[in-house]
Amino acid sequence: MARINDNYLKLKAGYLFPEIARRVNAFAQANPEAKIIRLGIGDVTEPLPQACRDAMVQAIEDMGDRGSFKGYGPEQGYEWLREKIAQQDFQSRGCEIDASEIFISDGSKCDCGNILDIFGDDNSIAVTDPVYPVYVDTNVMAGHTGEVNDKGEYGGLVYLPISADNGFTAEIPNYKVDLIYLCFPNNPTGATATKEHLQAWVNYARTHGSIILFDAAYEAFIQDPSLPHSIFEIEGARDCAIEFRSFSKNAGFTGTRCAFTVVPKSLKGQTKDGQTVELWGLWNRRQSTKFNGVSYIVQRGAEAVYSPEGRSQTQALISFYMENARIIREQLTAAGIQVYGGENAPYVWVKTPNGLSSWDFFDKLLQTCNVVGTPGSGFGAAGEGYFRISAFNSRANVEEAMKRITEKFKV
Amino acid sequence: MARINDNYLKLKAGYLFPEIARRVNAFAQANPEAKIIRLGIGDVTEPLPQACRDAMVQAIEDMGDRGSFKGYGPEQGYEWLREKIAQQDFQSRGCEIDASEIFISDGSKCDCGNILDIFGDDNSIAVTDPVYPVYVDTNVMAGHTGEVNDKGEYGGLVYLPISADNGFTAEIPNYKVDLIYLCFPNNPTGATATKEHLQAWVNYARTHGSIILFDAAYEAFIQDPSLPHSIFEIEGARDCAIEFRSFSKNAGFTGTRCAFTVVPKSLKGQTKDGQTVELWGLWNRRQSTKFNGVSYIVQRGAEAVYSPEGRSQTQALISFYMENARIIREQLTAAGIQVYGGENAPYVWVKTPNGLSSWDFFDKLLQTCNVVGTPGSGFGAAGEGYFRISAFNSRANVEEAMKRITEKFKV
Repeated sequence: MARINDNYLKLKAGYLFPEIARRVNAFAQANPEAKIIRLGIGDVTEPLPQACRDAMVQAIEDMGDRGSFKGYGPEQGYEWLREKIAQQDFQSRGCEIDASEIFISDGSKCDCGNILDIFGDDNSIAVTDPVYPVYVDTNVMAGHTGEVNDKGEYGGLVYLPISADNGFTAEIPNYKVDLIYLCFPNNPTGATATKEHLQAWVNYARTHGSIILFDAAYEAFIQDPSLPHSIFEIEGARDCAIEFRSFSKNAGFTGTRCAFTVVPKSLKGQTKDGQTVELWGLWNRRQSTKFNGVSYIVQRGAEAVYSPEGRSQTQALISFYMENARIIREQLTAAGIQVYGGENAPYVWVKTPNGLSSWDFFDKLLQTCNVVGTPGSGFGAAGEGYFRISAFNSRANVEEAMKRITEKFKV
Repeated sequence: MARINDNYLKLKAGYLFPEIARRVNAFAQANPEAKIIRLGIGDVTEPLPQACRDAMVQAIEDMGDRGSFKGYGPEQGYEWLREKIAQQDFQSRGCEIDASEIFISDGSKCDCGNILDIFGDDNSIAVTDPVYPVYVDTNVMAGHTGEVNDKGEYGGLVYLPISADNGFTAEIPNYKVDLIYLCFPNNPTGATATKEHLQAWVNYARTHGSIILFDAAYEAFIQDPSLPHSIFEIEGARDCAIEFRSFSKNAGFTGTRCAFTVVPKSLKGQTKDGQTVELWGLWNRRQSTKFNGVSYIVQRGAEAVYSPEGRSQTQALISFYMENARIIREQLTAAGIQVYGGENAPYVWVKTPNGLSSWDFFDKLLQTCNVVGTPGSGFGAAGEGYFRISAFNSRANVEEAMKRITEKFKV
């Protein structure tokens, strides 16, 4: 009989979000009158920017005429989109990134998982704890870990705890790891990294020949002008970092699907026998062989994000969600609950009141306030005692949810 | 230094289509007046069906309103699309396939590569020769092969030759292989398989516990009503086959991007220690973890393929390309050139005249007729002496190309 990839059996059965859905559905069935407000999954709720919609309608018209019809596009994405990204997201911030180093994809989740294809199986790998589960699960599936323990930690992975004690930025290890996942602004904690902190990571990576896998999916939510939006704002990062970006959260593309990954041409890895190889060529080959590019229509929609109208409409969306975040922060703080994040990120990271466990607080919030959030322990052992509240919802829902919480929890 | 995936270095440097592009560009630069007609890459040329465009414009409108806006969709695809596929592509042909067994994706090329994620590294793997290069390259990248030899064959892969001698259908081996790639209607040869031939493969697979990876991307081009469109028309296939389908060629979605993969719930594989595991669950987990679904807009476009208007418009596209194929077949035959395929597939597989090698015929056709095709040897050693001509082009271009070829080559 054909053999399966046994590593899949190491994955924890209850993935976080299905378990949340199960509990919410059970509660909703038992309490059909309850008006449940969902501040759990980080999914956008507001309409796509008009500029993006207009560009996509135009692209569909292009597809209706033989002369302007588009068949297979470049697997790496259209030059007109890559150029705009390189200029407006990178060169305008002083990052030396060329359009050819940008690979358009259908999602950062895909890219975060697929990037492992080009790496060997014998690298040591570090993640923060708590962490976006996809970094961990894709390494489990690729056979880079041992079994899971009671705390939900996989053997062989290096976990770097982040908590209020270290300002939610991991301490840089004093030993070598080959691949390090960093996410700033952070999902789930909403924490940010200063240039100095990222410089320390880049220095570490260059010293050890490590590669930083930098997830900047939430960079557009940064309000503090002193904070870096890209790892490539850091001196030396071109030699040690890959960056993941997405249109999901800034332009509301979670259901439209477009993202990109930046692989500098100066980035190198090593073969088993010590030969040095450029990673750009490997990723280019991977994408050419296992991917066929993003829909022309969607790429035209993404391009419109960089038009003057698109920029202002996208900025309005971000301001809207960040005002939600401000309301969440202020109301919870006023209720005597300790909160973090939410100032440069659409996530507010809540210390559960009265020493409740993450899941106990989840159940209590659901039952007493009919509000859904995400238990911090679902993101890793060190997330226990925390809770993630997302700013992605309508103003009315956010205000109503905060009213209910402050009424029930006010000390 | 971080380690790379050394298997990438085994890949042959000159991928077929870039090499074709290089030669065509060199010729075009040296002969700027030449009117080159491209019948090489299997890319569609005609406008998207009106029904698909209308549905996508409506979907963009949905995205503009908070009430109908769509964020993250199901990773497996929307139920309304999966249901229509299950009914119209499978149940209507007597195939016992449920909507839950259909996974919507952004392309068959992606799925053909990604499917290897759920299998172990110790399976024996068979491909036909000639073959669609993606099956081979993704196995090389996954470390399932040894080095490549002078003929372009990778160590460890089982090559099943197909040629005029066996009617371009591989002889079924008398030994066990675990995974078998089959493609009908075939790319590149345009050959088809009868129900009897597929039944023999299914019987083989069930005897040996093998899995058939069945690529049916060209099924819509089948004209002969006796030929099966799906492996699931064959008794017992639910226990031994995965099928890949695409909207690329029937509805002209090469630049729009939508496809699907069928994984029956009855399909099983084995762990190293002999435990039996359902493949559906593994693929579901793979897609949930490393993929975020296809654009809502694009899925609405694909759904429209199943409307009465979409069906008739898609049928018109197929008839158009098949009329091109008929012209190519007849004209080349009249010129004394031996041709295969093109009757139930958009590819005509040409025996090169005068015993020319595939690349010599390529160069000659380019230089004397300014027509581009694809050298058969690019698809594998047993493709030497053959040449692929695609029916995907305008009527005028196909007629002009055939006029030039018959004038130059007529015996």
